[in-house]
Amino acid sequence: MITFSKALAIIQQEIEAINYPEYPDGLYKPVAYMMSMKGKKIRPALTLLACNLFVEDISEAIKPALAWETFHNFTLMHDDLMDRASLRRGQQTVHKRWNDNTAILSGDAMLILAYKLMEKSPANIMPSLLGLFSRTAAEICEGQQFDMEFENRIDITVSEYIEMIRLKTAVMIGACLKSGAIVGGASERNSEMLYRFGINLGIAFQICDDLLDVYGNPYIFGKNIGGDILCDKKTFLLVNALNLSENEDRNKLLSWFRRKEQQEEKIGYFKQLFDKLKIRQLANATIVTYYKQAMADLDQVSVSSENKEVLKSLSADLMKRES
Amino acid sequence: MITFSKALAIIQQEIEAINYPEYPDGLYKPVAYMMSMKGKKIRPALTLLACNLFVEDISEAIKPALAWETFHNFTLMHDDLMDRASLRRGQQTVHKRWNDNTAILSGDAMLILAYKLMEKSPANIMPSLLGLFSRTAAEICEGQQFDMEFENRIDITVSEYIEMIRLKTAVMIGACLKSGAIVGGASERNSEMLYRFGINLGIAFQICDDLLDVYGNPYIFGKNIGGDILCDKKTFLLVNALNLSENEDRNKLLSWFRRKEQQEEKIGYFKQLFDKLKIRQLANATIVTYYKQAMADLDQVSVSSENKEVLKSLSADLMKRES
Repeated sequence: MITFSKALAIIQQEIEAINYPEYPDGLYKPVAYMMSMKGKKIRPALTLLACNLFVEDISEAIKPALAWETFHNFTLMHDDLMDRASLRRGQQTVHKRWNDNTAILSGDAMLILAYKLMEKSPANIMPSLLGLFSRTAAEICEGQQFDMEFENRIDITVSEYIEMIRLKTAVMIGACLKSGAIVGGASERNSEMLYRFGINLGIAFQICDDLLDVYGNPYIFGKNIGGDILCDKKTFLLVNALNLSENEDRNKLLSWFRRKEQQEEKIGYFKQLFDKLKIRQLANATIVTYYKQAMADLDQVSVSSENKEVLKSLSADLMKRES
Repeated sequence: MITFSKALAIIQQEIEAINYPEYPDGLYKPVAYMMSMKGKKIRPALTLLACNLFVEDISEAIKPALAWETFHNFTLMHDDLMDRASLRRGQQTVHKRWNDNTAILSGDAMLILAYKLMEKSPANIMPSLLGLFSRTAAEICEGQQFDMEFENRIDITVSEYIEMIRLKTAVMIGACLKSGAIVGGASERNSEMLYRFGINLGIAFQICDDLLDVYGNPYIFGKNIGGDILCDKKTFLLVNALNLSENEDRNKLLSWFRRKEQQEEKIGYFKQLFDKLKIRQLANATIVTYYKQAMADLDQVSVSSENKEVLKSLSADLMKRES
């Protein structure tokens, strides 16, 4: 079995070896720029690791892994534009560095490039890989749509929130794993259990992300603390605060919405309300629930425990991460 | 052989039978809206007609045909946004009726839906169909990029212009035909000759389009005459006018750029200059050249002349069209 860092190294090397067409450079330079940003690259690594559960030789999983990473970066390019975000991983976003039209069209090209990579897989598994890819891609668009619709709502239930992050974040983790399993020749049942493992891990992962925005260490986190609070983002924390707060607390919470001034006070108020409602504990308990379910799913995958160790320790690390 | 109108009727019926997911409707309603607009639907009809050259039963060409129509509408949704166009076929564009983010995200979903349709083709031809689809899709993005870059240039050569419309318009006509041929079990050579026929027809078709903007009958054309002139669009006419005009004429032409006032005078000046430089005749001669090449390519396709008649008469009609 390869280690997680070995998988990352392979992905990094393969990304650097991609030659985008030179011409028109206005279309492909932003694609190369986006792909060269420092990202965690967990998703493509999961494809390699999942494949490696079933076969030694993971070379055929590389193109599908790159397809996922390319697809992920496409979603970031369009999401950043839709969110009007200026920075991504400390660098200018594409629509800021170039312009809106560039982010639209280079994003489109990037989605097509992702398909091209996925189409390089062996013909016998191409229908199942592409079916999984397209289904997942559509679900991620649906998740982004729900996320945008949530901006104008204050009555979001926790299960609606979970469904949104399942679509926007978790299905891709599941599909990255499943595609690796398909390349590795896994049984339908093993592929499906890995998919479920990914879904539950992905949900836990996203709630961790929501927590980091408020409780992360700003020096490690890489973003300013409270960014989600300042733009009224409907995170696990805020959705629960809206559901659990009453009377004056809720009115005061609502009165902060859409306010751009007094940033520190706004973050302070939200934090204090989250504390009062014990939302951090609630988030942690929810993370543990999904994490445990993920581990139970992984247990169902019929390969040796030894082989599964790398996914287990990676999962644990993801829950402890600080950025 | 089915007729062109029969092919259109099948496409129309199949489009109406598509059930988009109901939820989230903010994502899929704009997709259905775009697909329900009255368009010429020549592209998907070409897929059916090309298939029908080789086999009686065209049922397996329907999904690929719908994939092309869906893809074409995706490009229109994003192009309209990038061009800030308010109207499309007399109806509000998606970003006007909804908003920019909707046009971005529903467009993305539409591109994915196009792939999903293409993935429904039989497994044995899926690799070649998807390869063609992705290659063509990337080329169309490249064509759109060149078109946008031309906005800021006044030194475009005629061959650069032809290459731009080849990518932006013609490759799709070629690919629609070729995909039908592939479904129909055509030989590599026959598929390739149909592709070339489509490329040359597509180039002739686009130059006709450029001519219609200036010389069309406004009551039949459906758009206001001179729309391209008012936004300084680098059409075949303008590119040639920039290359052929000299001294005062050229300076006067350049002085009209980016001017939004005196619309009638601007259109009048451009028209008079086009006349002086005999650009209409040049455009017609160029159309004839590409059209004749298209017919020569079609002649090379080894099926009976009788079977090719429908594509021949459709091609002739497209050159005589008034809208």
